[in-house]
Amino acid sequence: MSRIGIFDSGVGGLTVQRAVLDALPAADTLYLGDTARVPYGTKSAETVTQYSLRNARFLARHGIDVLVVACNTASAVALPALRAELPVPVLGVVEPGARVAVRASRSGRIGVIGTQGTIASCAYQAAIRRERPDALVTACACPLFVPLAEEGWTDPGDEVVQGIVRRYLAPVREAAIDTLVLGCTHYPLLAAAIAEALPGVALVDSAAAVAAEVRERFGGGATRDAEHRFFVTDAPEKFLAVAGRFLGRPVTSAEHVDV
Amino acid sequence: MSRIGIFDSGVGGLTVQRAVLDALPAADTLYLGDTARVPYGTKSAETVTQYSLRNARFLARHGIDVLVVACNTASAVALPALRAELPVPVLGVVEPGARVAVRASRSGRIGVIGTQGTIASCAYQAAIRRERPDALVTACACPLFVPLAEEGWTDPGDEVVQGIVRRYLAPVREAAIDTLVLGCTHYPLLAAAIAEALPGVALVDSAAAVAAEVRERFGGGATRDAEHRFFVTDAPEKFLAVAGRFLGRPVTSAEHVDV
Repeated sequence: MSRIGIFDSGVGGLTVQRAVLDALPAADTLYLGDTARVPYGTKSAETVTQYSLRNARFLARHGIDVLVVACNTASAVALPALRAELPVPVLGVVEPGARVAVRASRSGRIGVIGTQGTIASCAYQAAIRRERPDALVTACACPLFVPLAEEGWTDPGDEVVQGIVRRYLAPVREAAIDTLVLGCTHYPLLAAAIAEALPGVALVDSAAAVAAEVRERFGGGATRDAEHRFFVTDAPEKFLAVAGRFLGRPVTSAEHVDV
Repeated sequence: MSRIGIFDSGVGGLTVQRAVLDALPAADTLYLGDTARVPYGTKSAETVTQYSLRNARFLARHGIDVLVVACNTASAVALPALRAELPVPVLGVVEPGARVAVRASRSGRIGVIGTQGTIASCAYQAAIRRERPDALVTACACPLFVPLAEEGWTDPGDEVVQGIVRRYLAPVREAAIDTLVLGCTHYPLLAAAIAEALPGVALVDSAAAVAAEVRERFGGGATRDAEHRFFVTDAPEKFLAVAGRFLGRPVTSAEHVDV
């Protein structure tokens, strides 16, 4: 059975780990959240690549068979550097998410929302066009969605949530998309509010998409009690306070590390 | 004439530098924005202290006569560690802001808003009570204010801005304060919206308060062309794109450094 390394800028990547655990219940996992330097989405590609390499080296030193880059921004900008350096396969969330979106879309009018770094990289736009060259992609950065989700303001009936969601989604609504990629680990927490603002639009969660790919390539093996370890670069208390909500099962300990 | 070192988690500290330059036009300044690891306000006191020490050592190596900690969160949690290690005087924004608030308040009912780290540290609350032991201090963290200001959504007529401001300020409004400390470098950008939600309340900007203290202790000297250098830990482009707006005068170059 495989040992899967997963890193993210913080706690959001636990939604990816959750999907991976649902797909491969017997896999051992090592999760690293770079909570001391979060967020990545507002920073330059150079800095995000440097931090991603440090995270990947840390996990590789602990022995992993595959690396899953749960952070959309890191997947969008750092994958070539990670693949060049790591001795194991490296999967990001962008390509699987783009493939699922292309399969889900009838009209080929696809929206992508993400951090400033993810959208500016054009990684989703390029990955979608590789799968379907005539796709019409409309991409928008939504910088307030992460702090909104972290604040727990996600109720679709909340007028502040509605106001922010409608403002950011106006361009994709005008573009008459039929499919929207939630290109950031935090955005599924706002899915209900996003769905209300875009009736009839299919929402694609890249976490489920990458988990399906991990199962396809690294699945199998007998049922057993798997081991899960969690590492964070800031003090563990705040991570532990919210980790269970993101992972969907209890997280009782996390180790503070310097990468 | 003094050479003043100023550091902040990012670009917000330029509002403090602006006040310092207004107070001491002939002083040389070195500004360091830790833009690769911004924000500090959501992170643990240990991590903020570690980053603050690295920033301070970098500026000390370049030769400074005084260190101004522009970041409220770093001022709230890291001042003792910085004062223990630095060979020059270290001024934070918390104590000057608290003193001005106590002088401004008639009723002694004082509000403080800031990041989660600043409010959780209770540094403002303690500093205010040292100046006026019977003060009634109501403190609220406002995590969405920084991303709101960075997004440029600050218009008091904007219903999203109004909704967020009213929700966060409800506790200080109920506490019938007459004075509110804007305990984060970004918050003055939202001053108009805050003032509208709290009519009749005096707003205290800690930037002006610390600048007055710097002038008092390190002012004087002949008028001359001062030298100002800017350092950032992430790529300089994004810093340069917004720095002029925060500083109130052009910033044409910044050096990328690793601290």
